[in-house]
Amino acid sequence: MKRILFGLFGLFCASGLQAQKQAYQYVKPIIGTEKMGHTYPGATVPFGAVQLSPETDTLSYELNGKYNADVYKYCAGYQYADKTIVGFSHTHFSGTGHSDLGDFLIMPTTGKLQLNPGRADQARSGYRSAYSHQNEVAQANYYKVKLDDYNITAEMTTSPRVGFHQYTFPKSEQSHILLDLMSGIYNYDDKNVWTFVRVVNDTLVTGYRQTSGWARTRTVYFAMTFSKPFVGYGQKNYDSKQVYKGFWGKFDQTKNFPEIAGRKIRAYFDFKTQEGEKIKIKFALSPVSQENALNNLKAEIPGWDFEKVKNEGQQSWNKELDRINVQTLNEDDKVNFYTAMYHAFINPTIYTDVNGEYKGLDQNVHKASGFTNYTTFSLWDTHRALHPFFNLIQPKRNADMVSSMMAHYDQSTLHMLPIWSHYANDNWCMSGYHSVSVIADAIIKGTYTGDAEAALNACVTTAKHRSYEGIGEYMDRGYISSESNRTSVSNTLEYAYDDWCIAQLAKKLNKTAIYEEFIKRSQNWKNVYDAKSGFMRPRLKDGSFRKEFDVLTTNGQGFIEGNAWNFSLYVPHNPAEMVALRGGKKHFAAHLDSLFTMHLPDEFFAETEDITREGIIGNYVHGNEPAHHAVYLYNYTDAPWKTQDRVRMILKKMYLPTSDGLGGNDDCGQMSAWYIFSALGFYPMAPGSLNYELGSPAIVHAELKLENGKTFKVNTKNQSDKNVYVEKVLLNGKILDRKYISHTEIMNGGEITFFMSSKPKKD
Amino acid sequence: MKRILFGLFGLFCASGLQAQKQAYQYVKPIIGTEKMGHTYPGATVPFGAVQLSPETDTLSYELNGKYNADVYKYCAGYQYADKTIVGFSHTHFSGTGHSDLGDFLIMPTTGKLQLNPGRADQARSGYRSAYSHQNEVAQANYYKVKLDDYNITAEMTTSPRVGFHQYTFPKSEQSHILLDLMSGIYNYDDKNVWTFVRVVNDTLVTGYRQTSGWARTRTVYFAMTFSKPFVGYGQKNYDSKQVYKGFWGKFDQTKNFPEIAGRKIRAYFDFKTQEGEKIKIKFALSPVSQENALNNLKAEIPGWDFEKVKNEGQQSWNKELDRINVQTLNEDDKVNFYTAMYHAFINPTIYTDVNGEYKGLDQNVHKASGFTNYTTFSLWDTHRALHPFFNLIQPKRNADMVSSMMAHYDQSTLHMLPIWSHYANDNWCMSGYHSVSVIADAIIKGTYTGDAEAALNACVTTAKHRSYEGIGEYMDRGYISSESNRTSVSNTLEYAYDDWCIAQLAKKLNKTAIYEEFIKRSQNWKNVYDAKSGFMRPRLKDGSFRKEFDVLTTNGQGFIEGNAWNFSLYVPHNPAEMVALRGGKKHFAAHLDSLFTMHLPDEFFAETEDITREGIIGNYVHGNEPAHHAVYLYNYTDAPWKTQDRVRMILKKMYLPTSDGLGGNDDCGQMSAWYIFSALGFYPMAPGSLNYELGSPAIVHAELKLENGKTFKVNTKNQSDKNVYVEKVLLNGKILDRKYISHTEIMNGGEITFFMSSKPKKD
Repeated sequence: MKRILFGLFGLFCASGLQAQKQAYQYVKPIIGTEKMGHTYPGATVPFGAVQLSPETDTLSYELNGKYNADVYKYCAGYQYADKTIVGFSHTHFSGTGHSDLGDFLIMPTTGKLQLNPGRADQARSGYRSAYSHQNEVAQANYYKVKLDDYNITAEMTTSPRVGFHQYTFPKSEQSHILLDLMSGIYNYDDKNVWTFVRVVNDTLVTGYRQTSGWARTRTVYFAMTFSKPFVGYGQKNYDSKQVYKGFWGKFDQTKNFPEIAGRKIRAYFDFKTQEGEKIKIKFALSPVSQENALNNLKAEIPGWDFEKVKNEGQQSWNKELDRINVQTLNEDDKVNFYTAMYHAFINPTIYTDVNGEYKGLDQNVHKASGFTNYTTFSLWDTHRALHPFFNLIQPKRNADMVSSMMAHYDQSTLHMLPIWSHYANDNWCMSGYHSVSVIADAIIKGTYTGDAEAALNACVTTAKHRSYEGIGEYMDRGYISSESNRTSVSNTLEYAYDDWCIAQLAKKLNKTAIYEEFIKRSQNWKNVYDAKSGFMRPRLKDGSFRKEFDVLTTNGQGFIEGNAWNFSLYVPHNPAEMVALRGGKKHFAAHLDSLFTMHLPDEFFAETEDITREGIIGNYVHGNEPAHHAVYLYNYTDAPWKTQDRVRMILKKMYLPTSDGLGGNDDCGQMSAWYIFSALGFYPMAPGSLNYELGSPAIVHAELKLENGKTFKVNTKNQSDKNVYVEKVLLNGKILDRKYISHTEIMNGGEITFFMSSKPKKD
Repeated sequence: MKRILFGLFGLFCASGLQAQKQAYQYVKPIIGTEKMGHTYPGATVPFGAVQLSPETDTLSYELNGKYNADVYKYCAGYQYADKTIVGFSHTHFSGTGHSDLGDFLIMPTTGKLQLNPGRADQARSGYRSAYSHQNEVAQANYYKVKLDDYNITAEMTTSPRVGFHQYTFPKSEQSHILLDLMSGIYNYDDKNVWTFVRVVNDTLVTGYRQTSGWARTRTVYFAMTFSKPFVGYGQKNYDSKQVYKGFWGKFDQTKNFPEIAGRKIRAYFDFKTQEGEKIKIKFALSPVSQENALNNLKAEIPGWDFEKVKNEGQQSWNKELDRINVQTLNEDDKVNFYTAMYHAFINPTIYTDVNGEYKGLDQNVHKASGFTNYTTFSLWDTHRALHPFFNLIQPKRNADMVSSMMAHYDQSTLHMLPIWSHYANDNWCMSGYHSVSVIADAIIKGTYTGDAEAALNACVTTAKHRSYEGIGEYMDRGYISSESNRTSVSNTLEYAYDDWCIAQLAKKLNKTAIYEEFIKRSQNWKNVYDAKSGFMRPRLKDGSFRKEFDVLTTNGQGFIEGNAWNFSLYVPHNPAEMVALRGGKKHFAAHLDSLFTMHLPDEFFAETEDITREGIIGNYVHGNEPAHHAVYLYNYTDAPWKTQDRVRMILKKMYLPTSDGLGGNDDCGQMSAWYIFSALGFYPMAPGSLNYELGSPAIVHAELKLENGKTFKVNTKNQSDKNVYVEKVLLNGKILDRKYISHTEIMNGGEITFFMSSKPKKD
């Protein structure tokens, strides 16, 4: 820590501030790396295209083509409980519930060359190394670990498109740096489509990796440069079926042969090292070409100063995190808050080269004109709170994200906005067409200033894509029948909300016909409400509700990753009517109480890997997204104080500043965005609306520094862990006599003050 | 034939010429399509990037990964003896001895959809169709055939980068056009790396095919447009192992789903057709991108006039063929001559898009600046006579070919000129580094006017690549030892010739040190000459010759695709010394006589697929390249009349105007270039030298219209099939008292007159 403190000392002297920690220093990337958080501990800059992080066990040595049962566990490549590190790769999802990526695994070793990663349960069975958390440091844009088997200290940092490795070797005649092109996340036998490597000279290597994983057609190009020339290199091609390897006895292609290509390649570079000698690697990515990767490398990290790159990246984190200056009751809360912001600012990731080029959904090269193109849109998750958070605190980026979605639409032969898209692909994961929520919210809140009519048209076209997951039937029948779709109810509910978003956008643009059409569609949630059971329920084509119906299980009841208890609350755009329909305020509040207090036995979610015990409170599933708005529904009963109480409870139970601190997948920042909003005291129940539901702030004081130059302050009085109830609220000094605050009020700057109490205000 | 004649009639009227056939009308693409010629009958323009031709049986339905024994037979995809056509694909080698390509197979069908090609030996077992040669027309840039099983007439023509299909359907409610992306030539199970298809709208489809065949890393992009909208389309993905197909129940991806990708895809497009209705397809290729393919399509064939494109292509053939105006003793000779020119002008193929872009050896996109980039360099074959022929009659293109080789060199991380390169790859097939022959010849003859010193440097660097097939040992020892290489003798001989080329180039550039170094190396052929046996012979490291030695077999005797009898003659750069060393003129002439008159039993070449009985005269193998210069060696004895006699014999025996008319692989035009030179009466024994050996012209009269504006005429007196001997020769009216003519003499224009006789001139 000595070096860091010294560096900070310099900063403090310059700024004249009192010696306090900077925001980025509260970030603990290790949070969520254990169990089901699916975050990664490695280095990245805000929205960086490179996520350089250790892999502990992606089971990449399993090559028999059979299903890898742990593929879900290793979505981010790293599990805190594991005892060995396989290497360090350059691309990672943060918090997803499905896996992919893990490109270009680098591993430094010494001694006899080993090209097989070995097995986690067999020490020294391959090139992987034991490590311990005592020798591990994970900070924003900095990761360090000692590889015990080799006595090598590995450090890494990044710029937006370049990973920067620094390996401190022992004295060795046989030091190696492996480049394992077979390794990857979601790495079935046939994921690798092709890999290509050019050893340009003794410090520069370029190439690409093409995969068909969750992204069906995906190519990542790289340029890799070493700080010290290697003395030799080689490769092994593990593909026994490659038609023509070009050997013919002309060359020994396994050693010092610079043109390497195949489906299953592991390459290595040899060095002789002195005790404590550092070998550094800059590893740049591009979605377009080797040349662009090399250009990215040269543009972003021209020199070899590791500390400089690390510091610049950490300061870029600081700049982003400083958009909210927060004071908390204790350090843990501050760690949670800034780590949540950190996790919120990882995805979507930049998907343009420094020259503005990127590969589009059509697999053509495009130039992003006037915007930065982003990828990794986990929209079923992130439309709820992450993109609304961006609308508030990162509006410029969110506008670019909408532009990226529109580019996706323009390139789509399906003529559809993204569903779950990454790296020039859509995997159409999860339900709904929630791009429309993000787009409507961004336009309604004035964030996106591009062609609004074109955006509306894209939304409408997507929402009318009859062949997509029951939309045709939904349009004809007003709901999706149980016969035609396993998740017919949740699809109907999600479409109805999305349709409401389209209606709001149409209204804003004075497109009356579209408004009428979609506001009507937005009522379709009523068509799957079964008044008899009091739940949303699978409905047959003949109009009757399905007889077999279990309200607890997540399996086969018409819902995706949720049960009837959780999903039946999903009418974010019309909570008042939903509460009325479901028996009125009192009855509904009691129903909500049951949700939070009953017990959901494990058997009811055993088949849904996105739901685990850690993420459940009663029958309320916070570890997955469908009910993320649920706690704010008390605002539509006579018991808003229960929102306040339970928000604070969820914040406490589901967010801990520990490796196992997240109650479920962070899902590209959605879980974190929930934290940030809720900790600030308000939450966007229905993106597309200007209103935020008021809850109970967990912070002491926060200043939101808005891009429009204004500041919005959140103050609390009498804040404590016990004083979770809100006695009164002042907005700019005046009593705010409602349960919401509007986006406009926030963007105008000013302050909201919550007066906290240990007693609920029940009147 | 009616339409063609009518078309020609129009031309004749316009030009006022008398009604005689144009040069292109003597072209019979069917020549060489039976047995081992490995030519294709389909449509292409001179040096065209598209070679649109029928496949009769590439065994592409064999998907079990086992070796396909017929892969050699189907180098060009078509065998005349086959009874069925599988479809029409867009890329074909012409005359090679190894296979690849066969991209984007199109097949029109009617009736029940079949996506499996079926087996040649089982009628109607799949989508393939019976056909007969009676219903087949193969012309320069036009191919037509009736598909009997469907009563569909298929016609095709091309522009440089676009294939133009025209299918005349019967009346059918179920007409289909298949796009089989699994089909290909050299199509082992794992050749397909990836295929990608976008159905942009109901007449436009784009995508790409990535293969790892003989070219290890190869991608071809396409854009395909239909003259009539299809009513539906679909695909089947045959890859059971594809990790994530993105199905998830969201879409039915098998029908009308526009985003198709996978390793094993067959797609189809449905139509309803009237009796006699024509559906046309324009199918453009690009090595760079779908966009470039579409640009190529729009630039080259904007409309739908099939006849116009056909006629333009045929006129472009006419323009190229008219570079030599030839009169022959009979029509067959003229057919042979112009078909030889046709086959000579197919390869190398254009490898730039209309915008000048191409994909380089480094897999980066490059722009060809100031030249057209070519690919498909079968240099072991074509350095002998094809490139010398280009230096004479296509110097501009040959200069561009040298530029293409230099671009290859610049992109090569190996720092090597091409050996056998196609589509941004080198497969390093066959021996030597014969690029240096082509380059030296082009510079010495004044054809290539680029940076000669850079070219010399590339030649020297290539020739000193110690790790390439024994070059290091060759440099150290003066020969390659039998212990280290199976083809040690032929390698040594070929390197020695290539080194002489480098020496000649160095001499021209006044690089004395390089000249000295390489003229010394060019003597290395002597180091493998065994005076005791009288043959070039495998030599051990200790300097002794290998004891086991069979001068007849092609297997394991130190030679590649040849036996000691043929290869021991391979000192093209120093024939006089070779003759002296091998016993003097008389002895050597007798030795040559034996070569042409002895019998080589089949067992001695059974293991060498490039040598077949059809290509052998005595023990002289004309069907393969090593001895192509041999017949001209009589000029270095006292019996040059035997050159004359035997040249005429070879021309007669090895070149027939029939489907089985070629005595061996045409090898990208080398076999044809041998014909053209020899028929004209002279031959470049040692490219790199300005001299051509005189033989015996088989034509009556020829006019070579040179690019410098001059004309060189070859006249004969008393020409007949019996008068094969040259009594005297006049050059521009003066007696030419030597056995060669120089390049300069030809390029200066003028005329050479051969006085023919039935009696040899033995004095």
